[in-house]
Amino acid sequence: MQTMSLRITPDEFDARCQRLLAYVKKNNWNGVVLFDNYFILYFTGFAFIPTERPMAFAMNASAERALFVPRLEVEHAQSAARVERVESYPEYPGNPHPMARFKSVLDAMNIQSKIGADTDGYPLILGYQGAALSSLTGAAIENVNAFVNSLMAIKSDAELALIRESVKWGNLAHRLLQKYTRVGANEVEVSKRASIEATLTLIDTLGPLYRAQSFFDDGPSAGYRGQIGRNAAIPHSLTTNATFLAGDVLVTGAGCPMWGYLSELERTMIVGEPSAEQKKFFEHMVNLQDTALENIKPGKKCSDVDKAVRAYFEKNNLMAYWRHHSGHAIGLRYHEGPFLDSGDDTVLEPGMVFTVEPGLYVPELGGFRHSDTAVVTQDGIEMLTYYPRDLASLTIPV
Amino acid sequence: MQTMSLRITPDEFDARCQRLLAYVKKNNWNGVVLFDNYFILYFTGFAFIPTERPMAFAMNASAERALFVPRLEVEHAQSAARVERVESYPEYPGNPHPMARFKSVLDAMNIQSKIGADTDGYPLILGYQGAALSSLTGAAIENVNAFVNSLMAIKSDAELALIRESVKWGNLAHRLLQKYTRVGANEVEVSKRASIEATLTLIDTLGPLYRAQSFFDDGPSAGYRGQIGRNAAIPHSLTTNATFLAGDVLVTGAGCPMWGYLSELERTMIVGEPSAEQKKFFEHMVNLQDTALENIKPGKKCSDVDKAVRAYFEKNNLMAYWRHHSGHAIGLRYHEGPFLDSGDDTVLEPGMVFTVEPGLYVPELGGFRHSDTAVVTQDGIEMLTYYPRDLASLTIPV
Repeated sequence: MQTMSLRITPDEFDARCQRLLAYVKKNNWNGVVLFDNYFILYFTGFAFIPTERPMAFAMNASAERALFVPRLEVEHAQSAARVERVESYPEYPGNPHPMARFKSVLDAMNIQSKIGADTDGYPLILGYQGAALSSLTGAAIENVNAFVNSLMAIKSDAELALIRESVKWGNLAHRLLQKYTRVGANEVEVSKRASIEATLTLIDTLGPLYRAQSFFDDGPSAGYRGQIGRNAAIPHSLTTNATFLAGDVLVTGAGCPMWGYLSELERTMIVGEPSAEQKKFFEHMVNLQDTALENIKPGKKCSDVDKAVRAYFEKNNLMAYWRHHSGHAIGLRYHEGPFLDSGDDTVLEPGMVFTVEPGLYVPELGGFRHSDTAVVTQDGIEMLTYYPRDLASLTIPV
Repeated sequence: MQTMSLRITPDEFDARCQRLLAYVKKNNWNGVVLFDNYFILYFTGFAFIPTERPMAFAMNASAERALFVPRLEVEHAQSAARVERVESYPEYPGNPHPMARFKSVLDAMNIQSKIGADTDGYPLILGYQGAALSSLTGAAIENVNAFVNSLMAIKSDAELALIRESVKWGNLAHRLLQKYTRVGANEVEVSKRASIEATLTLIDTLGPLYRAQSFFDDGPSAGYRGQIGRNAAIPHSLTTNATFLAGDVLVTGAGCPMWGYLSELERTMIVGEPSAEQKKFFEHMVNLQDTALENIKPGKKCSDVDKAVRAYFEKNNLMAYWRHHSGHAIGLRYHEGPFLDSGDDTVLEPGMVFTVEPGLYVPELGGFRHSDTAVVTQDGIEMLTYYPRDLASLTIPV
């Protein structure tokens, strides 16, 4: 008897590794080393909290896969990672340094002289210090990021299914957020209440089918990140514990990690009857988003989408309110490449998933941004998020 | 009229920069470049969410300070960062690349030829790609991490006051966590309930005196990270949505970001009457923590503390249950150097703040770890956390 499961299958992890292996062979590398936690999750299914204790995935040209972890992660890695070997070191900083042990692991796997890697040594996380991979091994290190990112950019059916599931729970959290947002309420209270209720409902609904595999959230969440009233003009604000006032322009954010996969839903809401100026910018923002959505088609370039959006900004004399590009890919990372950016000429392909979110930021008035998650199809896009986008639906009664 | 404030004063930020400047001059560098978000928070007071859009702090030998940010962070940086200049680029990846603009900023500040930096270019965050600082500038790059970490390791009175305030709120969140933990309850529900109640109480209590300045939490939190029952044997587990059962060994974690400053409180709790085996390991764990605490004294080395702990492990035949070192420094980072690690010979000095947390991990039984936060004084330590450590106080009635 099979049991229903939402997670990526072992076969799919193996297929990903096979694609990486083909690239290793094509480049005549002796192997590949990945330090980035999202890359490791993508190839092995192992989700972990990156810290100053170095971790790495290594695969040699014979398809042997190893995970290199500190002693305290051994059982965790053994139970969760699809690899042939889990190798460990006692502690960081330790003596000898963990990287000395890593060199012997690489030697034992014949990963020497020519290595593909995502970065030349474990990165500066929580103050980590250690030797570069190149100086440790004496090998020529070649960068594998662009290739790995290109693999991750095209989502499989199983990945799309997880993103679709994520969208539903982000929608619930956002619905509760909107319901509890009232004049006089505190943003933290509203956000936490919506997030906890959505999370407990998810647990009751999906039970053992669910794992977040995220170190940011245990389940769905929705909130404001401080983008309330005047602060809403700051795109990436942090929370300021604001209280909602009539006339506020609000910018929300909601999502849900689903076995590591993410989606993004953001809405601009107005507290009370919108002013003429608020209406004007809200309409421009929706037009900007429509412009982006209409321009996402396979065969077009990412830059084409952003240039069409920028043309609308310029035609309507709005560049004073421009702050960022039109969107980014999303998947295991909440921001991924390629970017809907004038400088990114990546060609759009079916299976790519983007956030679509041009924004307007008006000093003293607020920020105006919707973000929707959409997948590129054979002839256009499919919107995955389905929360209402119109002003009437997003006006908070006072 | 002055207003009560908890935050670090502008004078203290300036004094930190003066110490960094003296180091720049001593090394005959033309300036210093920092990419790490915690370093930037330490020197400028600017807390932000690091993403693929590069950010940097630069200071030249004339003490001129600049923050380099994407367009969307300009107003946020101007309002929060103690620097003379905020310089920006339109977008990432963009065309030209942001680093081309950064080079012109460095040139304008005469930061050329010999530069101290924390890492040779903006690190691999969310897939960021760009030129190394050395190839961008043609300058000799020298590593400034060890010096900056040594500054951050010695906490000022103002920093200690923030850590003390953090401890109180972590204590409240933990008290609520313990209160709501009962057989049949779900770990996520208990953790979210404790965290939200503590957070709302904090907001009502401190109001405008409080900012989290953290991208992990908006306020106090307490939870289990999946360290429940058998899973408690995995030190850095992620949540598994477990339900509490009689006989479970639980390992908690609680804390509260306070203007970015952190503390750590972890406790081992037993659901129901502890078994003889649970009692035995609990007692060893408390003895191990006492051993560490007794050995923290100014003038001793970090490695001395860990070696004393390891000696207890060996003397009592417990090395099969050893998984990690005895603790780490804490402050703006939740893990900082130096480490209470056999390989770290840093000399203990008054003002250093450590977590003290040797642990035992027993397969099929669970994990046993308390973590307390303590500051090194002139002649020993002062414990900052004050939650009960004894088994009777940490037994959950069934």
